[in-house]
Amino acid sequence: MKFYNSTNEIPEEMLKGIDLTYPQLTYLPETGILYDNTYNEKTVPIISGGGSGHEPAHVGYVGSGMLAAAVTGPLFIPPKSKNILKAIRQVNSGKGVFVIIKNFEADLKEFNEAIKEARTEGIDVRYIVSHDDISVNAYNFHKRHRGVAGTILLHKILGAFAKEGGSIDEIEQLALSLSPEIYTLGVALAPVHFPHQKTSFVLAEDEVSFGIGIHGEPGYRVEKFEGSERIAIELVNKLKAEINWQKKANKNYILLVNGLGSTTLMELYSFQYDVMRLLELEGLSVKFCKVGNLMTSCDMSGISLTLCSVKDPKWLDYLNVPTGAFAW
Amino acid sequence: MKFYNSTNEIPEEMLKGIDLTYPQLTYLPETGILYDNTYNEKTVPIISGGGSGHEPAHVGYVGSGMLAAAVTGPLFIPPKSKNILKAIRQVNSGKGVFVIIKNFEADLKEFNEAIKEARTEGIDVRYIVSHDDISVNAYNFHKRHRGVAGTILLHKILGAFAKEGGSIDEIEQLALSLSPEIYTLGVALAPVHFPHQKTSFVLAEDEVSFGIGIHGEPGYRVEKFEGSERIAIELVNKLKAEINWQKKANKNYILLVNGLGSTTLMELYSFQYDVMRLLELEGLSVKFCKVGNLMTSCDMSGISLTLCSVKDPKWLDYLNVPTGAFAW
Repeated sequence: MKFYNSTNEIPEEMLKGIDLTYPQLTYLPETGILYDNTYNEKTVPIISGGGSGHEPAHVGYVGSGMLAAAVTGPLFIPPKSKNILKAIRQVNSGKGVFVIIKNFEADLKEFNEAIKEARTEGIDVRYIVSHDDISVNAYNFHKRHRGVAGTILLHKILGAFAKEGGSIDEIEQLALSLSPEIYTLGVALAPVHFPHQKTSFVLAEDEVSFGIGIHGEPGYRVEKFEGSERIAIELVNKLKAEINWQKKANKNYILLVNGLGSTTLMELYSFQYDVMRLLELEGLSVKFCKVGNLMTSCDMSGISLTLCSVKDPKWLDYLNVPTGAFAW
Repeated sequence: MKFYNSTNEIPEEMLKGIDLTYPQLTYLPETGILYDNTYNEKTVPIISGGGSGHEPAHVGYVGSGMLAAAVTGPLFIPPKSKNILKAIRQVNSGKGVFVIIKNFEADLKEFNEAIKEARTEGIDVRYIVSHDDISVNAYNFHKRHRGVAGTILLHKILGAFAKEGGSIDEIEQLALSLSPEIYTLGVALAPVHFPHQKTSFVLAEDEVSFGIGIHGEPGYRVEKFEGSERIAIELVNKLKAEINWQKKANKNYILLVNGLGSTTLMELYSFQYDVMRLLELEGLSVKFCKVGNLMTSCDMSGISLTLCSVKDPKWLDYLNVPTGAFAW
């Protein structure tokens, strides 16, 4: 990664570049706010956001049937509450505004301030905090519950439901039903390179780190790299222990295989092959899957695996309905 | 890049992983052939292919309105003629088969053998050789005319035309009219890492190499990295000298900003912003643009810029029509 802004600034050039590329997207300079200018005001707008460096999240998910707007902050730093508030006002048309927040302390602080203020202005703001990461802290084995790649299932399913006419109450109910079903675990093959060539953690060429985060946070265990299948086994086993699928009647799942930045498609689809074979042995039926660099951590090489039980078959319809978002 | 096959084998796991991900795509094991099982036999099929390591090219462009099939070889090694021939037979329904070949000696050899054999079997095969690269050889300054990222404009425009009902003669005419208008130049920010950690050429962290190829071929000049804008100026100036746009009445262009593997979207869209500003200063009007890691070189970090004059406004319609290909 050689092109970057100062780590303390909103990446204006990137956001202006996106504005110039897609006629349906408009950037509001110096706010981090990119919105869908074709947005249907008769529906409830959904917004999300966070630090930059996770592209295509969240800017690539702005578009008809997904997000009405995304608010982007500096590299790995959440947007300021004043800009989140501006985004809420920008998309509000009196039907309420639904906000999707990734579970990180700094993000929650900024989003909560903005939501509080918007509510004092009479805007009916509801929100969900995504917390799909099942990785544990290596020091105390506490679950981290960070919001990571599974968040985009919320973008897509809630966005399609909102487009179909879901009310703010109904969207909130769907979010509360869907979010706890989403489970993710990630592995790094190489660390993030921050601007000026600093790397986030040390990892030898032949090592992998299990349970990493999307901001360069180290994982819970470093191992020698022994191939895609070994990684697939570790991630599937950890997700199995957490989801406890062998005890559940419903065997239908949604699957995301996410690259964390510089993971090649050859790696992602080879890994996908290993995962699909393991899930078949487990007796699970994958009803929808998506593979790609969907929520990244700058140029980190790595993969995360997300599974979500299909509690309601409508979720699959919402996933399959076309969207105007460029990265879905 | 840590997941790979032996460099002498077709990447079976990747291709099987793609087959398992997309219901409309079918992989024929041990052939490298991935085809669209929803293909409309009343239209002329278009196929392409080449070595692997360029994903999503060409597998990601198989789908309704683009390619009927793609044939993939080992890493950076073209598929064998017998597999290309199998692919031609697979998609043939008597209306002729159109083949898009990237201009590399090894590719031409295999594709030509297959085409010759298919013709002896009575299949009306036509082809185009894409040669959009304007980079020069650093030793003799000869143009290389390699087939690189601009090739996917052929996939999309010809594919959409074929879907609309274009005959094999008409597709050939369109290809001959379109191909010479496509110009590409690329730059590396970091070298390719081949399996077992070998790198293709030496490039310091603060250097860029102009005019690189998509198989680790070095460029014509190495410079200190001085930012996205400096690279945009070099690429736009070289394309200007080649296309000679200031002397032409038609100012309408198609633009591709292609990442070569591990280039982040933050880098690509920041670069896109610089390019769009320069083209505006040049008086050009960009009528269609696409940004992404579209034709890669494994995990190389780098960017290529493609420009194509809009000789016929129908080309824009063909670019904008939806396709079932997962990577467009």
